[in-house]
Amino acid sequence: MTGVPVFTGRDVEAAVSPERAVEAVREAFVAHARGEWTMPPKVYVTNYPAGDFRAMPALGGGHALLKWVTSFPGNPPKGLPTVTGVVLVSDAENGQLRAVLDAAAVTALRTGAAAVLAAETLGRADATTAAVVGAGVNGQAAARTFLARGRTVSLWDVDERRARRVAEELGADVAPSLEHALAADLLVTVTPGNDVLLGEGALRPGQHVSLMGADGPGKAEASGPELARAHLFCDDWEQASHGGELAHAVEVGLVTQEDVTALGDVLAGTALGRANETELTAFDSTGLAIQDLAIALVALEAAGDDPALARLAL
Amino acid sequence: MTGVPVFTGRDVEAAVSPERAVEAVREAFVAHARGEWTMPPKVYVTNYPAGDFRAMPALGGGHALLKWVTSFPGNPPKGLPTVTGVVLVSDAENGQLRAVLDAAAVTALRTGAAAVLAAETLGRADATTAAVVGAGVNGQAAARTFLARGRTVSLWDVDERRARRVAEELGADVAPSLEHALAADLLVTVTPGNDVLLGEGALRPGQHVSLMGADGPGKAEASGPELARAHLFCDDWEQASHGGELAHAVEVGLVTQEDVTALGDVLAGTALGRANETELTAFDSTGLAIQDLAIALVALEAAGDDPALARLAL
Repeated sequence: MTGVPVFTGRDVEAAVSPERAVEAVREAFVAHARGEWTMPPKVYVTNYPAGDFRAMPALGGGHALLKWVTSFPGNPPKGLPTVTGVVLVSDAENGQLRAVLDAAAVTALRTGAAAVLAAETLGRADATTAAVVGAGVNGQAAARTFLARGRTVSLWDVDERRARRVAEELGADVAPSLEHALAADLLVTVTPGNDVLLGEGALRPGQHVSLMGADGPGKAEASGPELARAHLFCDDWEQASHGGELAHAVEVGLVTQEDVTALGDVLAGTALGRANETELTAFDSTGLAIQDLAIALVALEAAGDDPALARLAL
Repeated sequence: MTGVPVFTGRDVEAAVSPERAVEAVREAFVAHARGEWTMPPKVYVTNYPAGDFRAMPALGGGHALLKWVTSFPGNPPKGLPTVTGVVLVSDAENGQLRAVLDAAAVTALRTGAAAVLAAETLGRADATTAAVVGAGVNGQAAARTFLARGRTVSLWDVDERRARRVAEELGADVAPSLEHALAADLLVTVTPGNDVLLGEGALRPGQHVSLMGADGPGKAEASGPELARAHLFCDDWEQASHGGELAHAVEVGLVTQEDVTALGDVLAGTALGRANETELTAFDSTGLAIQDLAIALVALEAAGDDPALARLAL
């Protein structure tokens, strides 16, 4: 077989199940916490107000990865996706390109995996209800991942018809109201992050929330005071404190680095997670290239020599 | 036609002549100098001693570019290229991927173009002889570009057989000795940059040298004192002073930013080039993503709808 395998979105989904994604992302967080997998800072190429491009590199597992991915929030009304792009995977020993993958599918899998991994790691052991607010591509992935882990999940979206359609497709429930969704033991929010969803007092003791939506400057799903109530976790302090959910709270002094634990450290066993049954835990996800690398390597290993894959010859 | 066009190295060469490359790179330098084309800093993913990957973004001409390209100097004995990778071009207004191009071919064209553009801009008007030292992929491109501009050019390489073979292929001359090559009115050096080629006093008044080889930390083709003799130009001060030819000379205080003029400013008419017939001019090229963007846009415009191109469907 000659040429570099090309994974369309469907190829990625066929090669990597949500359950496998959770395990791969868990291993990536641990490898990163141990310094075995590394990740130079992502670079933004901005063309606001239209949108931005992110170049996200990572190194690990004998491979180097570069994700070139967009955020164009105004695209859907034009029939174009908000998130699009490609993931490139190269051999770290000789530089040769090894795979090209659809970035949106990789992003959805790893985002859903991180949301659920954080919820399972930081939520109460006796958590029963799970909800996802925001039924876009990445919200769907989070719901699909909860379901794959054997949980029931309810969905809420500002577009009620979308919530119903997605719930039916996935076999999830529709939350009867936003308040009902926000009361779940394990809550995942995947909104655009332009409006605060969780004002002060919105959450109750013992809950966990994975805040997946705020991935750029100025975005936030929870208010600063509400964040300050919670035991805080993040995927990466640099990203979270500069362009993530925590950025504003850090800026105004409500939150400092000492208040925030890296999820990878909890998974690696070098930091404590939830301290008791009554505290509120919150995970700020900004999205890491090491997560993308984890998904891409699973796809490559599972299906890289599949003769049905398209090939790129350069 | 559905799918994103894929330009192999041959497709790039078929779509973009060396002459067209020089004009496109000239326009890119001017647009960058005017602030119309922009370029976030490149990011290195290092896996030394094996090699490194560079993620190089740029924005201009209604498009965003990301080049994912390697430098693995130990590859050739293994039958693998030092420089490999892909160039991704996306629509800056909606984020959609528009083209995938072979990075080595784009890099060679824009490197050859920059070398000759600098030589023609900064060399003496009555320059007659031109030489290229280093007959690898990018040295060949520089020689091909000189020939396309109607100049005779002589080639020298540490591997004499390679120099002869390349000279025959291109219709260039073989320099009778390194000293002979180094005495050319317009000199282009494209060596790996691990050893100093130009010690103090190697060049003579009135010459121009385009130093193309030193593209990473610790690399240099000219000694600090030799650089300090010259009227200095660079493609980008940030890159040149940190990871380019000038880095060491800047570090030890032999050269400061005030001593170095950006080629783009000369081409845009906002800075002076060569001051007189006797000074020695030197251009430090580190390689800019805006140059890659210039080549990629020419290829896309010239051949993007060619039905013979492969297509990437994601």
